[in-house]
Amino acid sequence: MDERELWQELGQQLRVDAVRASAKAGSGHPTSSMSAADLAAVLLAGHLRYDFDAPDDPRNDRLVFSKGHASPLVYGLFRAAGVLSEEEFGTYRQLGSRLQGHPTPVLPWVDVATGSLGQGLPIGVGMAIAGKVLTRLPFRVWVICGDSELAEGSMWEAAEHASFYELSSLTAIVDVNRLGQRGETMHGWDLASYTRRFEAFGWNAIEIDGHDVGEIDAAYRAAEASEKPTAIVARTVKGKGYSAVENENGWHGKPVDVAAVEELGGSRNLTVEVAKPEAGEPHVFEAVGSDPPRYELGSKVSTRKAYGEALAALGGVDPKVVVLDGEVSNSTFAELFKDAHPERFLEMYIAEQQLVAAAVGLHVLGWKPYCSTFAAFLSRAYDFVRMAVVSRATVRLCGSHAGVSIGEDGPSQMGLEDLAMFRALNGSTVLYPCDGNQTAALVRAMADLEGISYLRTTRGDTEVVYDADEEFPVGGSKTLREGHDVALVAAGITLHEALAAAETLADEGVEARVVDCYSVKPIDGATLADLRLPIVTVEDHRPEGGLGEAVLAALAEHGVSTPVTRLAVRELPGSGKPAELLAAARIDAAHIAEAARAAVRVAAGV
Amino acid sequence: MDERELWQELGQQLRVDAVRASAKAGSGHPTSSMSAADLAAVLLAGHLRYDFDAPDDPRNDRLVFSKGHASPLVYGLFRAAGVLSEEEFGTYRQLGSRLQGHPTPVLPWVDVATGSLGQGLPIGVGMAIAGKVLTRLPFRVWVICGDSELAEGSMWEAAEHASFYELSSLTAIVDVNRLGQRGETMHGWDLASYTRRFEAFGWNAIEIDGHDVGEIDAAYRAAEASEKPTAIVARTVKGKGYSAVENENGWHGKPVDVAAVEELGGSRNLTVEVAKPEAGEPHVFEAVGSDPPRYELGSKVSTRKAYGEALAALGGVDPKVVVLDGEVSNSTFAELFKDAHPERFLEMYIAEQQLVAAAVGLHVLGWKPYCSTFAAFLSRAYDFVRMAVVSRATVRLCGSHAGVSIGEDGPSQMGLEDLAMFRALNGSTVLYPCDGNQTAALVRAMADLEGISYLRTTRGDTEVVYDADEEFPVGGSKTLREGHDVALVAAGITLHEALAAAETLADEGVEARVVDCYSVKPIDGATLADLRLPIVTVEDHRPEGGLGEAVLAALAEHGVSTPVTRLAVRELPGSGKPAELLAAARIDAAHIAEAARAAVRVAAGV
Repeated sequence: MDERELWQELGQQLRVDAVRASAKAGSGHPTSSMSAADLAAVLLAGHLRYDFDAPDDPRNDRLVFSKGHASPLVYGLFRAAGVLSEEEFGTYRQLGSRLQGHPTPVLPWVDVATGSLGQGLPIGVGMAIAGKVLTRLPFRVWVICGDSELAEGSMWEAAEHASFYELSSLTAIVDVNRLGQRGETMHGWDLASYTRRFEAFGWNAIEIDGHDVGEIDAAYRAAEASEKPTAIVARTVKGKGYSAVENENGWHGKPVDVAAVEELGGSRNLTVEVAKPEAGEPHVFEAVGSDPPRYELGSKVSTRKAYGEALAALGGVDPKVVVLDGEVSNSTFAELFKDAHPERFLEMYIAEQQLVAAAVGLHVLGWKPYCSTFAAFLSRAYDFVRMAVVSRATVRLCGSHAGVSIGEDGPSQMGLEDLAMFRALNGSTVLYPCDGNQTAALVRAMADLEGISYLRTTRGDTEVVYDADEEFPVGGSKTLREGHDVALVAAGITLHEALAAAETLADEGVEARVVDCYSVKPIDGATLADLRLPIVTVEDHRPEGGLGEAVLAALAEHGVSTPVTRLAVRELPGSGKPAELLAAARIDAAHIAEAARAAVRVAAGV
Repeated sequence: MDERELWQELGQQLRVDAVRASAKAGSGHPTSSMSAADLAAVLLAGHLRYDFDAPDDPRNDRLVFSKGHASPLVYGLFRAAGVLSEEEFGTYRQLGSRLQGHPTPVLPWVDVATGSLGQGLPIGVGMAIAGKVLTRLPFRVWVICGDSELAEGSMWEAAEHASFYELSSLTAIVDVNRLGQRGETMHGWDLASYTRRFEAFGWNAIEIDGHDVGEIDAAYRAAEASEKPTAIVARTVKGKGYSAVENENGWHGKPVDVAAVEELGGSRNLTVEVAKPEAGEPHVFEAVGSDPPRYELGSKVSTRKAYGEALAALGGVDPKVVVLDGEVSNSTFAELFKDAHPERFLEMYIAEQQLVAAAVGLHVLGWKPYCSTFAAFLSRAYDFVRMAVVSRATVRLCGSHAGVSIGEDGPSQMGLEDLAMFRALNGSTVLYPCDGNQTAALVRAMADLEGISYLRTTRGDTEVVYDADEEFPVGGSKTLREGHDVALVAAGITLHEALAAAETLADEGVEARVVDCYSVKPIDGATLADLRLPIVTVEDHRPEGGLGEAVLAALAEHGVSTPVTRLAVRELPGSGKPAELLAAARIDAAHIAEAARAAVRVAAGV
């Protein structure tokens, strides 16, 4: 069999396998797999350089299925590569199978979970950036995209960044099968509409017949030779190879009759020898050493500044740390890392989706990304963070300018839902420091956490209340003041308000314990359960899903019943001075004291 | 003073005002206002058709500052239009002032809040769609954009949709002042990089000197005459007019010295006669009448299908209802509305940010938008929903395919954080029906709610447990089964599991009360507080921020202490059959019964 025949046969095998897998499962997307089968076949057999026995090898090419619903095609490729048995192939979409409905890294050859469209290409950008400026190896990044998903703005964030970073190693293979889920896409088979857009964004763009293996091969060669990122825009037929469904609407996400197997020429068992990656050694940055920042007790510094200083110091001792910015590094203070380690600082401009996606891509290549922007603007990337969880990615996020305490800029800039957003993610860690030393310790701790970790920082300066040598275990809390009448549970900016309230209360003979829940998730349930006091929680966040509800959940899980008053931002704030806005939201010292007095009165039965 | 002189003078006045306002406030973005001042001056004095005495007049042009940080310019325009007194102008950024740090609709001439970049243009697309296909009036939509924000993918979603819908009334005025917050943008003053992109997306694009009032006027005339949406890409100078800061980095978001006023020729008090809108009557659709769907007790229907059927019926009686789809209308069943009312159905393709932004734009024009996609994919638009809250917009969202109960498609498609996400928004309503009749009633109820309302629907068929005439007030609950040993609190899919668990328990002599909290927010705290029973909550959602924590919060607010066991999805799910996944997540009938038995044992002190 010559090369072309092999590719054609492999394409048919992949189609047959997509039909078989989804027919057996009773669900899945065979038609979306069949359109891309030839594109995938030529890639696997003719161009991909990948050691299936060593998927973590940083020299490997990366293959991302941005159109994750073509999972039967992904798994068919693995079968053709000889790493997936026929038996396991038959478990597609079954409980406990590694062959889930959309690809996830439960399989070692899948780098990232896809299935939320428009994410694979921006993640691929992160991988290609890693290859070019960090790992410095000549691997290629191949991303198989759907045509429908080009409606997602995130794809154009990726196009922009790929061009800006001159990622010649990146190839987007666009499977233009014309049909979305419920009908035709905006552009149908108007391939030029796509190439025009990619070219305008600075890409090399090639139109081909996506079922002509010769044209596909030539396009891949052109991509390999290109000095720009390349988009291969391939005209394909959804359901290709089975005449009953070819190019017909209404067959998205539906198994087709196994009669298709016969029309496709029956089952095949080709195994392909996939090329090995190019030799090379990954670049390693030097640990230049550095001293972590230390802040004097009683001095003032913002936690956002401490974040930047701690990050810059961390970069000196951990050469894997990379920092990504959403064009606000002078506000988040990520710029301090840039000053110290410019080679490991990546400017992602105002494109938060690409910011997080790039971090996921860097994670795949073994880097330790920290991303920062305003807490409010991380909401722009929530779907990307959600999918990063499914990808089992380890990504560190820092949101600055949290809460009403930012002041004059007003509600559009106030992160007030971020704790809820990040707590709700599987396996996430949510940290909210109140002073410089605590921030520095938590920034260091994040380096060793797995999964998604989130650090919330505050705009204004706050007093340093902890010694520089204090330790802050994730999942812990600190009792900053003893007291046996009421417990004030706070974190971040409100910790300082709680301390002030406790002072006021002490003058009145009410002894308030002050607990710093800097680890919002996991929260220190044991300490909270042991309080045995009326509790007032206070947070510069909405009342739902934040610190207050975390405390309630912890108490419930420990089977402890105690009255809890929750202070939080219950109205839509406006602009004003930070202190005015804390007061208006009823989360300042005066309102905490008022709530504590009421709690003490109720407890005393007055 | 001739026209050109007036425009130039007005430009200078707007600069002076930006300097004055931010200097007095001690914060703000004068330099970003100064770059766009001439663009704004010519627009206000020469092209905008807007009745400042009747801002809600649907015939008015709409003016959106996508670069919301240029708020001193926005307020300066209102002063120049004679609707903002000098006294109020001096309250910029003060507590209680209508002149917030970024524009919000607290001011009647501001349609939508901006300040999260990349949102104004997609919202403008919604307004222009309303003008073209719904309201059918020849108003124009002028959106003043920053250059930095063109890095946001949402801007290209807007570009794509404006082109697809042939929105000739839409003009994007891009203020290319070259400098972002922390340095130069990707493209600096390379205007062609922007025009090339817009043209590739099917726009008319014009490069101009953004400080030459003649060129600006000519460009606006060209936009008015264009049959395509027009992007005016204007080369401007940040801080223009004050030599100490002109085109200098480091002046973003900082007041400048009032010496600038002198260099700008001193304060001015020009008032501009703004042109009135073109006459015309807004189109009104006919209420054709329809019968709401009714489902027989004991029959089976999915709540997603009931959503579609109820929506189609609602469209027949409420001609203001418009439905927007994220290219999944055959899954959400929004297609039933399309079949019934094709003129009020808008396909937004796979672009969830544009989906929600368009709804906000439609809201401004008085329409009643319902948007639907998979619950998981609404996370893509979270920042847009967050900002819609700041905009005081009324937008109805429906997320289908919630939870592990979707089955085989796997975690990328499972909305598991949506309740947390939507509960955390100020003034939001979160509804989660369990059967067809309840869904139909809640879909109707949403039509009259203000703010953001969210309906969560389920993929699989569920039994109809309510009569078609049953009423479901927002904020209420239903007790579906009496019992005095334990209370099972559920909603949606888990309500059926709870009912099954109660059957099992009854066989064992344990009488479980079953409470349907279909209104997750506001939740029926009074009923929950009156239970006086051990409670088991169960939700097909993550344990954080959802039903369980809502119940805990309600109990705490009512000062009620009772043991609460929360069942929720605590691990990362995979693929499988719906029943298998409910069991694996420990939220099926068997696990509810187990938790209820344990709760009863603890309560009995066994």
